[in-house]
Amino acid sequence: MTTGVMKLKYFIDKLVNNIKKADSRICVGLDPHLDLIPEFLLDNARKEYSDQKEAAAKAVLKFNKKIIDEVVEHTAVVKPQIAFYEKMGLKGLKTLNKTVEYAKTKGLLVLLDAKRNDIGSTADAYAEAYLDNENIDAVTINPYLGFDGVKPFLKYKDKGAFALIKTSNQSAGDIQDIESKKGKKIYEHMGQLVKNWGKEYLGKSKYSNLGAVVGATYPQELNQLRSLMPGVFFLIPGYGAQGGGAEDVAAGFDKDGLGAIVNSARGIIFAYRKNDKYSEKEFAIAAGVAAKIMKEKVNKAIEKFHS
Amino acid sequence: MTTGVMKLKYFIDKLVNNIKKADSRICVGLDPHLDLIPEFLLDNARKEYSDQKEAAAKAVLKFNKKIIDEVVEHTAVVKPQIAFYEKMGLKGLKTLNKTVEYAKTKGLLVLLDAKRNDIGSTADAYAEAYLDNENIDAVTINPYLGFDGVKPFLKYKDKGAFALIKTSNQSAGDIQDIESKKGKKIYEHMGQLVKNWGKEYLGKSKYSNLGAVVGATYPQELNQLRSLMPGVFFLIPGYGAQGGGAEDVAAGFDKDGLGAIVNSARGIIFAYRKNDKYSEKEFAIAAGVAAKIMKEKVNKAIEKFHS
Repeated sequence: MTTGVMKLKYFIDKLVNNIKKADSRICVGLDPHLDLIPEFLLDNARKEYSDQKEAAAKAVLKFNKKIIDEVVEHTAVVKPQIAFYEKMGLKGLKTLNKTVEYAKTKGLLVLLDAKRNDIGSTADAYAEAYLDNENIDAVTINPYLGFDGVKPFLKYKDKGAFALIKTSNQSAGDIQDIESKKGKKIYEHMGQLVKNWGKEYLGKSKYSNLGAVVGATYPQELNQLRSLMPGVFFLIPGYGAQGGGAEDVAAGFDKDGLGAIVNSARGIIFAYRKNDKYSEKEFAIAAGVAAKIMKEKVNKAIEKFHS
Repeated sequence: MTTGVMKLKYFIDKLVNNIKKADSRICVGLDPHLDLIPEFLLDNARKEYSDQKEAAAKAVLKFNKKIIDEVVEHTAVVKPQIAFYEKMGLKGLKTLNKTVEYAKTKGLLVLLDAKRNDIGSTADAYAEAYLDNENIDAVTINPYLGFDGVKPFLKYKDKGAFALIKTSNQSAGDIQDIESKKGKKIYEHMGQLVKNWGKEYLGKSKYSNLGAVVGATYPQELNQLRSLMPGVFFLIPGYGAQGGGAEDVAAGFDKDGLGAIVNSARGIIFAYRKNDKYSEKEFAIAAGVAAKIMKEKVNKAIEKFHS
């Protein structure tokens, strides 16, 4: 019975619980760039598997598991970016499945970065493809098609979705910064819509199962969207490698230190490449240390911002 | 040497050639809803494979091949919707791979409906995941993230991309119809951007490898976007089951009868369900006839529109 009750818990409440438990507001991105993962892992796999994609996929699985082992103490959630797995073909997707399975056994929440979007029965099919998977807790979605492309991702109480509002890239503004007749930017309109769409999906934590993606690289907009979208949990990409710092992301959080998670992929999982202290073989330890440092930096910055 | 030259041909020129060859401006959507494909195919597969997803995937592959055999005479291009394959797991994606391989052996172009979108190295990974596949000629993409999310899909001369502008669904207008300060709707801004982004990727046909998705269900907007976006090839969804008719889509074409393809999935591949004349076993024949009728209807409507 307990399990049944647990399973019915709102995704967003599970996220809040995990954040409090780890005292961590970070999210570790599992984006396995093949040219950045340790060479010895690829070499070993190539000795065992003649198929290049299979060897790569096996190396990535080993890489991910070791990273998860070291970051689990410092994060509430991991975020695999599905594009990197799709690139490795079916073997890559098998590695993704095994990665999310492993992450769940460690008590982590899994947010799949897929930015899926479509309409009607096709959006249903995407939602079922990912949210029917017991090892995936939430997906990112692209809301350009309006509410009927978003709704199918909200049909399970215990699963969530994060909709793109203001992305972290340089040309994010091409569409997102267009000013409307009402004097608002398109990302503000999108933020308003997502807030309203999510109102029916509030958990006990008063946050909604429908979250929002707002980049760290536009701190002013992040601050503004935080005020505009109470009750909406933010996923903040763009920290570290893309240029956002802890001070930049602090504005994305509510006064109680909740309301957002900050993603970093390269800065954590490939930390060994940036620090001479670590050999290639110590990649996972380097990732664990980087996650710990980021967790503490973000916590401090939030405290400072709200003091 | 000839093969080499052929391979370097612009995607969009290959599309124009195929359209002229088949005298057909339709696109057959391969969206295998499991509850709509003939029961006997699923039954047979279930006898052979105990795994439910594997049985479904095998049934779909048989279904797709028979459909392709019958529609090949009447269409230039097929468009599998990847969500339906992802829903069936790895077995489903294997069926997708075999479907696109089969379609290519029949001389069809393959447009993968995936609506992928991301930034930087992640958009690169998506582009490579699909456009590096020799059996996929083009993908649909969602351009909400701006040009740096679109550019990676344009790096191969012989491959193309279709960006969402005005989608065919009911809530398309939530964002797409917002009016800007300049008095233009967001879909017009998007149309203008896509036209400009595609200018560097023009084939001999004077159309660009970067096309646009504009729904049949908004004929006025389709007409308006046709004028606004010369040189941009349209993929027009929403015909048939979603409510668009041949008269509605005619406005999406240029005077010479080029410039667009009209997609229909359910109306063709599940035609046997709408017509008592056909038994379940004659599903493929029914699809062939439906494709022929649609091809002719669209051709006539274009002729009438421009006469």
